[in-house]
Amino acid sequence: MTAGQIPPESAAGPGAVQLIGHTVFTPPAGIDFDTDADAGQALVEFAGRAIYRSWDKPIPATASNAGFLRHLIEVGHLSVLEHASATFLLQGIPRSVSHELLRHRHFSFSELSPRQPVSGAALPAALRADPELAELADTAVRRSEDSYREVLKALEAKASGAVQHKQARQAARALLPMSQPTDLVMTGNLRSWRHFVGMRATDPADVELRELAVEVLRQLQALAPNVFADFRISELADGSMLAASPHVRDA
Amino acid sequence: MTAGQIPPESAAGPGAVQLIGHTVFTPPAGIDFDTDADAGQALVEFAGRAIYRSWDKPIPATASNAGFLRHLIEVGHLSVLEHASATFLLQGIPRSVSHELLRHRHFSFSELSPRQPVSGAALPAALRADPELAELADTAVRRSEDSYREVLKALEAKASGAVQHKQARQAARALLPMSQPTDLVMTGNLRSWRHFVGMRATDPADVELRELAVEVLRQLQALAPNVFADFRISELADGSMLAASPHVRDA
Amino acid sequence: MTAGQIPPESAAGPGAVQLIGHTVFTPPAGIDFDTDADAGQALVEFAGRAIYRSWDKPIPATASNAGFLRHLIEVGHLSVLEHASATFLLQGIPRSVSHELLRHRHFSFSELSPRQPVSGAALPAALRADPELAELADTAVRRSEDSYREVLKALEAKASGAVQHKQARQAARALLPMSQPTDLVMTGNLRSWRHFVGMRATDPADVELRELAVEVLRQLQALAPNVFADFRISELADGSMLAASPHVRDA
Amino acid sequence: MTAGQIPPESAAGPGAVQLIGHTVFTPPAGIDFDTDADAGQALVEFAGRAIYRSWDKPIPATASNAGFLRHLIEVGHLSVLEHASATFLLQGIPRSVSHELLRHRHFSFSELSPRQPVSGAALPAALRADPELAELADTAVRRSEDSYREVLKALEAKASGAVQHKQARQAARALLPMSQPTDLVMTGNLRSWRHFVGMRATDPADVELRELAVEVLRQLQALAPNVFADFRISELADGSMLAASPHVRDA
Repeated sequence: MTAGQIPPESAAGPGAVQLIGHTVFTPPAGIDFDTDADAGQALVEFAGRAIYRSWDKPIPATASNAGFLRHLIEVGHLSVLEHASATFLLQGIPRSVSHELLRHRHFSFSELSPRQPVSGAALPAALRADPELAELADTAVRRSEDSYREVLKALEAKASGAVQHKQARQAARALLPMSQPTDLVMTGNLRSWRHFVGMRATDPADVELRELAVEVLRQLQALAPNVFADFRISELADGSMLAASPHVRDA
Repeated sequence: MTAGQIPPESAAGPGAVQLIGHTVFTPPAGIDFDTDADAGQALVEFAGRAIYRSWDKPIPATASNAGFLRHLIEVGHLSVLEHASATFLLQGIPRSVSHELLRHRHFSFSELSPRQPVSGAALPAALRADPELAELADTAVRRSEDSYREVLKALEAKASGAVQHKQARQAARALLPMSQPTDLVMTGNLRSWRHFVGMRATDPADVELRELAVEVLRQLQALAPNVFADFRISELADGSMLAASPHVRDA
Repeated sequence: MTAGQIPPESAAGPGAVQLIGHTVFTPPAGIDFDTDADAGQALVEFAGRAIYRSWDKPIPATASNAGFLRHLIEVGHLSVLEHASATFLLQGIPRSVSHELLRHRHFSFSELSPRQPVSGAALPAALRADPELAELADTAVRRSEDSYREVLKALEAKASGAVQHKQARQAARALLPMSQPTDLVMTGNLRSWRHFVGMRATDPADVELRELAVEVLRQLQALAPNVFADFRISELADGSMLAASPHVRDA
Repeated sequence: MTAGQIPPESAAGPGAVQLIGHTVFTPPAGIDFDTDADAGQALVEFAGRAIYRSWDKPIPATASNAGFLRHLIEVGHLSVLEHASATFLLQGIPRSVSHELLRHRHFSFSELSPRQPVSGAALPAALRADPELAELADTAVRRSEDSYREVLKALEAKASGAVQHKQARQAARALLPMSQPTDLVMTGNLRSWRHFVGMRATDPADVELRELAVEVLRQLQALAPNVFADFRISELADGSMLAASPHVRDA
């Protein structure tokens, strides 16, 4: 892909979401542990059982991986979820959304450099849905980009050396809009992802972030169904999606 | 101050920086500890001595607070600096700068809500310094604000209820520029502030953030001179400031 | 105080607890903010209001510092509590208790070096309360200390140089009991302290840690009553204390 | 394995070390990225390139995964290492060593419950190596365990209910030695593991922890050779191992 191009998927909504990394489990030698799940789910169960060396499973309700993890989540023993992690690539999301994501301090981020020129805008659905507003927004974005280019040209004409060219790009982007698209590689453990989904998939006010969080949840439910089984996805009156769990409390 | 107004200082540069919180020390009963500094500096020395219960000071080089803290910093025993913290109010900084600040995960932040309407722009010095560019930038910002208001009006006309009005403001701000001003209350311990200054006051490329970091350093040197004594502030060829210490290594 | 001596208070129970550091507030210039509390409580309120620049106080229920902080805690908006911190000196606590404290990763710790010789033991109340058990425990501790000294003597006889003497002390302490006393300087922000108290002042099983957490809570309620007003301290059937809040949820 | 038994390997030294979890990489659709490594190493390279969307590799020195990661480490751009993690099971290590491990706050831990009865001791090599000291230590440990059992029996005779039995075990273990064995599941990202190895594999004073860190390094070098290539393992005069890297600075 050429620098500056946004992948086509991102035009469709809150940005493309792809799972690109997760944890796998290698059972240790010398311990008689076995379970009916693998990868991160097996590692989490192993860690939970290691606390009491309870490798045998006398209680039917917690003998399966699903039952054991359900119990952990119900009693709030979430620290063992930290042993498994998941990494997402988020493409073409607005900088205003990545700004909110960066507040989640338990995650690790690699973001597209702000000095990297990216054309176009990741506009909210509310603007894209209405032809008149979309037209108005597109014009506004185009004008901002024109100003950016004009200012950048003037600054670069005076610049010499790599540092000054960086400074020029840094200064000119002050005129680009908040909806400027960015990419993010975002890694967190499953406890942090539960917290993230619990906070962000439920906030009715912030549509873009909520839709992103619901898509992340969908992919996490495919990756680790027993860790995210308590979340239910539903549709709001305006057609947007929301997810909630009885085991997630605010803050 | 009325909502939406930027304090006049912020017009002058990278935003106003004010120290609004710091740690004070209450000597504990029953321990014969005394030193020639107070507040956070005394607390840090106390914690450093508590590790060996070394309340007497047989070595002249580390008998003063300045000498003791210099030694800690030279040998890299920085964890004791975590006991003292400092809080800054940063007013009128561009959202693009607060975006970079949020990456520093060891700090605590309270930021002006993005749904709070703020007029004007916190433009980089490179744009403000040149009358033609300043004119061009001001026009671009004004146009973006006009688009913001037009879109907001259209969205609010269709909105009902508090949530939909929040959504309207959220969507419309996609058109505001990256230089939109914001305020930040930012708290960190002195180890984190040393790390922050070491990374940000030295990067030649990012002028706005560097000038902010140098101003933070100046105020930290007034608050806790013995903790920041090794940083030297100097002027670059372009008139901007930079700070560095022999005891700060990259990353 | 001479190295190796435990302050007399620590003989009485779970170790002496003293508040030795906290955050103070300096109102910034240029903002018309005033409140009826000071120090950390005022800083937290300031940060909470900065998010909306809501310096005027139209709603009576949140016009006072107590009312504003009560509201923050009720709605779970706890991140602003991170701007104020508190530091405790814990003296003469058992290493087994400091082991549990170290699990709280949001705190900063300076602990008495394990190579620092400390005599005596910080025994649990259950042992101290019964004369026969106390006698038995004292004998056991004395014997462990005798073994420690014998082994240390043998190792030091063979050691040469500072490193080998450190290694000798390190190896010999393998024989000292888990109740070996230690000191800890422990710093955290008020959000972390609420979380700590919420987890540790409520666990019926771990008496020593619970009593320590209740004493920490008492001193935090004196320091910042509006931040800890929702915690109630009560006495259990066995005479030990417990604290709980309706706003603290498990995990 | 029956509760209370230590696996035979742990008798041999600083405890058994086994890698039981790590990150794998799934290349995203729509991006033309390819490399000559897989799993965590590929994910780290992907994240590093995503910052500039630099999928093509014009510079030979950084065209291979080894070259790209070497460059990241040399320039100190370590945050991208956070996307890949590794989990170790540490069995039969002394509680005094797990105490030091818990200080590393960027890791996630699941430790064997202190209320879980474990017999035997994880004695330092310095004691095990000398027959007379080993005999002396074994006697001391046996005596401590006798006292533990005697006190536990007396406390349990008076206890009623699950909570009081937990309290009895909690109190009695005050008499067990610091060398009491424990197990730990320890997860961290590769940046944290580099920091851990850099601090702990180099400290001449703490032999047990150093040997553990060197063994962790060996397994990390097998898992992700390009991330740990700069560490060299060497033997000290006393036969113990040490590891160091020119790119790791103290603290």
